Amino acid sequence: MASNNLETVLAKVSKEVTPSAKERKEVLSLASSLVEKVREAARNAGVKAKVRVEGSVAKDTWIRGEPDIDIFMQVPQSMLREAFGTICLNIAKEATKGSKQLERFAEHPYLETIVDGTRINIVPCYQSKPGEWKSATDRTPFHTDYVVPRLNQRLREQIRMLKRFMKGIGVYGAEIKVGGFSGYLCELLILQYESLVRVLEAASNFRDLWLIDYEGYYKGREDELPKIFEEPLVVVDPVDKGRNVASAVRKQSLIEFVAASREFLKNPRQEFFYPKQAKPLSKEKLLRVMKNRESTLFFVVFGKVKAVPDVLWGQLYKTQRSLRKMLEQNDFQIMRDSCWSNEKDLNVLVFEVENGKLPKVKKHLGPPISKKAECDNFLRKHIGSKETVSGPYIDNDRWVVEIKRKQNDIVKLLREKLRDGGRQGGVAELISKTIKRAFEVKVNQQAAKLYSSNPQFAVFLSDYLEAKPRWLKKVDGA
Amino acid sequence: MASNNLETVLAKVSKEVTPSAKERKEVLSLASSLVEKVREAARNAGVKAKVRVEGSVAKDTWIRGEPDIDIFMQVPQSMLREAFGTICLNIAKEATKGSKQLERFAEHPYLETIVDGTRINIVPCYQSKPGEWKSATDRTPFHTDYVVPRLNQRLREQIRMLKRFMKGIGVYGAEIKVGGFSGYLCELLILQYESLVRVLEAASNFRDLWLIDYEGYYKGREDELPKIFEEPLVVVDPVDKGRNVASAVRKQSLIEFVAASREFLKNPRQEFFYPKQAKPLSKEKLLRVMKNRESTLFFVVFGKVKAVPDVLWGQLYKTQRSLRKMLEQNDFQIMRDSCWSNEKDLNVLVFEVENGKLPKVKKHLGPPISKKAECDNFLRKHIGSKETVSGPYIDNDRWVVEIKRKQNDIVKLLREKLRDGGRQGGVAELISKTIKRAFEVKVNQQAAKLYSSNPQFAVFLSDYLEAKPRWLKKVDGA
Repeated sequence: MASNNLETVLAKVSKEVTPSAKERKEVLSLASSLVEKVREAARNAGVKAKVRVEGSVAKDTWIRGEPDIDIFMQVPQSMLREAFGTICLNIAKEATKGSKQLERFAEHPYLETIVDGTRINIVPCYQSKPGEWKSATDRTPFHTDYVVPRLNQRLREQIRMLKRFMKGIGVYGAEIKVGGFSGYLCELLILQYESLVRVLEAASNFRDLWLIDYEGYYKGREDELPKIFEEPLVVVDPVDKGRNVASAVRKQSLIEFVAASREFLKNPRQEFFYPKQAKPLSKEKLLRVMKNRESTLFFVVFGKVKAVPDVLWGQLYKTQRSLRKMLEQNDFQIMRDSCWSNEKDLNVLVFEVENGKLPKVKKHLGPPISKKAECDNFLRKHIGSKETVSGPYIDNDRWVVEIKRKQNDIVKLLREKLRDGGRQGGVAELISKTIKRAFEVKVNQQAAKLYSSNPQFAVFLSDYLEAKPRWLKKVDGA
Repeated sequence: MASNNLETVLAKVSKEVTPSAKERKEVLSLASSLVEKVREAARNAGVKAKVRVEGSVAKDTWIRGEPDIDIFMQVPQSMLREAFGTICLNIAKEATKGSKQLERFAEHPYLETIVDGTRINIVPCYQSKPGEWKSATDRTPFHTDYVVPRLNQRLREQIRMLKRFMKGIGVYGAEIKVGGFSGYLCELLILQYESLVRVLEAASNFRDLWLIDYEGYYKGREDELPKIFEEPLVVVDPVDKGRNVASAVRKQSLIEFVAASREFLKNPRQEFFYPKQAKPLSKEKLLRVMKNRESTLFFVVFGKVKAVPDVLWGQLYKTQRSLRKMLEQNDFQIMRDSCWSNEKDLNVLVFEVENGKLPKVKKHLGPPISKKAECDNFLRKHIGSKETVSGPYIDNDRWVVEIKRKQNDIVKLLREKLRDGGRQGGVAELISKTIKRAFEVKVNQQAAKLYSSNPQFAVFLSDYLEAKPRWLKKVDGA
């Protein structure tokens, strides 16, 4: 029955992910015309660029209704790197004149634009030889050339389903925000395992390491791979044996994928691929849920950070980690933390602690009694010191003293640390600039207004409180 | 200068501890007359007992003004053990008729009585051969016979000073309440090291183990001692090589002695031997000190426990340990705990926690993702369970679920656990009987009334809050 069910689900999903003939025709035609326009603009600018379609459109692996057209302009090695952000960007702008344009950059600048409702990325790179890459995107045309001849219709179907699965559980995309699986990585997984189900089976058996070397570059010496690459998932790039295609996959994303694979194989449902839209809690329900936790949930809220999404998310995660560490060093017990951004003018860091207030007195452990000289130093330091509240006394073989805690209120502590931008507390540079101008710390129900006025944030906070992956619905008892 | 100072202090202390000729005469005369009375009473009861003075009076090692007269009646081996509590006790009562009498017992029953302001203990034991002991006190006459011929006036002076040092820092006495050094142990330490200062030097170099084998029973195989005896301080009994004279010394007492020895040698002061009387804080100051800590200090108060002091303290310490463990298992962070008793009708357990209230929600860690079957069981158990508040979600390689905490208020938790006497929470048997009838839990300033109405408790609580050994006064900076 389970396997019947699996087949039914996969058959439905296959239909959903495969572009119609009409869509395919339109996308390919739009891509061709754009290639022509970029070529012409390059010619007009006097740049000898090879212009090609890359990515899922070139490989015919995009998901129905979700095409991204990547157009690469391979420029001569003689061109200066700075020209990517000037000459190349201008060529891209000229070619898509009249459309909405957004300057982006990953490792280097590129142009994102929307034409006829379809997102187009126009990306410069160098004409490099394999192994002699001058910029990170130089490999992309080689990826396309590697994958295309190895695919057939069945494999393309499996790739589309795997990508949709990744999207559905929230681990698709190598961007910093997600830290997940790129399209190319999905393609290599299907080349390796030949079907979605076999990829999921492999994932579901994950323990500590998952090593894939499709071209067999490390054949007979696979045990070297974990020494060369430090990530738990290593997929050796067929066009560059020194590169791990999965290096952007964060441990958390990998493990979400592993867990979702297990659950799907046990209980196959279409919702893994197409999750139901999350409905935020009503404001009343939100307040009740927060109150019932009897924890301290607080929100550091600040405005626009001047950074493209990848940089913004990198800075948000770094700041979240640093502040968490700072709070823990001040003895607050963090239950969970998270962050959210609308990628425009509103950013929120969330921390939940057991108690927002600690005793004013704090136990400070001294040396064990066996260390005579250290004990003596400890006593000289703390006896009669202004900071000493109680002791020193002996507790379990060591000297202990109770000292005054500098700040025992978490909100005050945060305000103090962030007042000057918080660089010393580990706030990342660009976020620090914003925080220096203004920030707010809201505790528990003080977040209600932000919640009611911002539906995206409401979905985020509802998800935070539920804390259950969307694919993990109520399951049958054992 | 330091050594000068040391000599001055020791000279003064020597004077203080040495009984005057008058005191010596009175004590010895009182002892002799009591021996006679016990002999007579035994004769009248038809018991063939050898009656002798033992302990510090027999060895001339008592501290001036603090004599304890121990009179032992060695009875024939044919006498039944039960007779210690009947026939022997009656003999003792008869011999001290007209004085205040208290039935006590250590391993077995004995009589304590006050005659002319001096405490007298009349203790039965068997006439045993060494190594064939029938009761724990059978060794005592052999201890006396071992020590007396090995002493001289100088050694007796050193013993008196060592005992006074132990008393001054609060580690003198093998009774459960103190868990410290017996008089006999002090005598053996002086036999081994020949002077107070050399005992303190040895103590101050303590690391993990301190082994003393004065008779050299284990010569050449000293490394076996830690295997035979599990205590950190081992003093082989010269009259019984299978017994550790220091077995009653608790680790905490040993380490207090070590620490005090170091401090005294560094900074010799008479107060180590004769500490100033502690003055409790005023009630206003007490309340201010407690408030300033911003911790939760609470008191479990209950009445008379039917038990002799050794049993009472054993039960108090056991209950303190069990309740501490129970509170920690319920996630309360115990800063310190303690207990107090007037040994009559009032007992108090003290616990201090960082926060008396925890969140209602509690993180419950599940298996790491590498354990596939356990993960599956964990999910089946917690998804959709009534206890689940949030999750399950993945955090750092493991499944985690947030569940409802049964009781998040420490006072309510304690009241629940103690309501039926608290046997299940680990409350010791006799205390449980008392608690079953009545107990109170007082939090922070609710202890004020107890404090004002009970000077002994006031001293205890003031000491608790200061938490500094009385001998550790303000010392010079390094």
